[in-house]
Amino acid sequence: MNTQREVDEFVKNGHREYLPHVSIDSVIFGYHDQQLRILLLRWRGLEGWGLPGGFIRRREPLSQAAHRILQERTGLEDLFLQQFHVFGDTPYRVRERSPEEFIEKYGLDIGHDNWLFERTLSIGYFALVDYSKVTVRTDFFTDAYQWWEVGEIPPLLFDQNEEVEKALATLRLQIYHQPIGYNLLPEKFTIPEIHSLYETILGKELDQRNFSKKLLALGLIRKLDERRAIGPHRSPYLYQFEKEAYEEALKQGIVHTY
Amino acid sequence: MNTQREVDEFVKNGHREYLPHVSIDSVIFGYHDQQLRILLLRWRGLEGWGLPGGFIRRREPLSQAAHRILQERTGLEDLFLQQFHVFGDTPYRVRERSPEEFIEKYGLDIGHDNWLFERTLSIGYFALVDYSKVTVRTDFFTDAYQWWEVGEIPPLLFDQNEEVEKALATLRLQIYHQPIGYNLLPEKFTIPEIHSLYETILGKELDQRNFSKKLLALGLIRKLDERRAIGPHRSPYLYQFEKEAYEEALKQGIVHTY
Repeated sequence: MNTQREVDEFVKNGHREYLPHVSIDSVIFGYHDQQLRILLLRWRGLEGWGLPGGFIRRREPLSQAAHRILQERTGLEDLFLQQFHVFGDTPYRVRERSPEEFIEKYGLDIGHDNWLFERTLSIGYFALVDYSKVTVRTDFFTDAYQWWEVGEIPPLLFDQNEEVEKALATLRLQIYHQPIGYNLLPEKFTIPEIHSLYETILGKELDQRNFSKKLLALGLIRKLDERRAIGPHRSPYLYQFEKEAYEEALKQGIVHTY
Repeated sequence: MNTQREVDEFVKNGHREYLPHVSIDSVIFGYHDQQLRILLLRWRGLEGWGLPGGFIRRREPLSQAAHRILQERTGLEDLFLQQFHVFGDTPYRVRERSPEEFIEKYGLDIGHDNWLFERTLSIGYFALVDYSKVTVRTDFFTDAYQWWEVGEIPPLLFDQNEEVEKALATLRLQIYHQPIGYNLLPEKFTIPEIHSLYETILGKELDQRNFSKKLLALGLIRKLDERRAIGPHRSPYLYQFEKEAYEEALKQGIVHTY
């Protein structure tokens, strides 16, 4: 959706193609060179930053919509993408920006009763990507993007700061339950590599020896009978995520309870 | 909503009072005498069981709607109630029952284009209650209720068996993160009491000594300087949930990562 004509069609008739009252917001975490960042888009004219998002097509399964929206924005497919919360305690999210301002800034020919100004619940999804591999696309409403450091997120539109906080809390809570990092590490990795990723996500130091013991005890990773040659006296063992075993356990409702 | 007139008004004009396309389904876990059960309602005429649920008022905050629906069904307030997942991968949930069948069974004077037959995403909430204290209310569409044992849930309407599975998996995953049991145990409890609750929820035996050590190490419970006199030679120590400390930590985004 990039031209004025496409946008006019979307604001006038979008509720025929998409479900009204529900949208998807994506908190896209990027990890590269031991830095954790979040992708934000700048809304043209509003001078505010916001999360990438979109609507669900009327016959489209929810999780498919979440993948489509992420793919449209980043060009990436088959990502670790997970629903984490529905935000609906702010009854008039869009109306915190007045319809007048919205209509004027974007030159829209619509009334205050347009479907986009009705109450919308946001379903939050979070993704983990390698941000050096992402090609971000802005659209008609946005004119810039930036990967913001997790500790330096600016004030966001609507209640999206709360969404980012909740996504980060969920990620941290699940880090020892889910194969988080599966998309960020090579298929076979060393303990220092996964240790560094987890320290960055958790934002604190972890004792490397206890850390690797714990991941093994939880059955989250598996030691391989293979080493990587780094130097003449350094050839650390390689490890792999136990992704299949874990997914099977999740399906059967058996989860780590340690 | 109990009389034919109230129901006629709801099916004809409910979309003016409630948000269409989104509903709330409640998985209400009941615990009593060391048994874990789920509340199901029988749909009159459809000969099927389903979860208690309802719609969100147009200006009502989402979490308030979830509490209202639960209160309407059980008479209980201030419960442990938590959102756990949005179900939206089955595009036509209601249409799995045909509109014809629905219209005929309940004597409704509406067309196939009624708002109730449109696609609806379900936001799942789970609650923990003491089922001996609950007064269940059925309504126009339902004519019976039953507390079903967790292991013996019958085939449910729509995709609700999946919802029950997911609720149970979430409950088990969070049992060492959240003060689950806070509403089910007395304010001060003994280790055998909480041990028995956790064994029931997890559906497996737990070594009592390791179990209590773990809860204390996680900061989930606190030992009091008080004992309960059970008999001449038995006076076990009492414990309390560290609810406030935990909620404060959650707010600040600090979560147990052990």
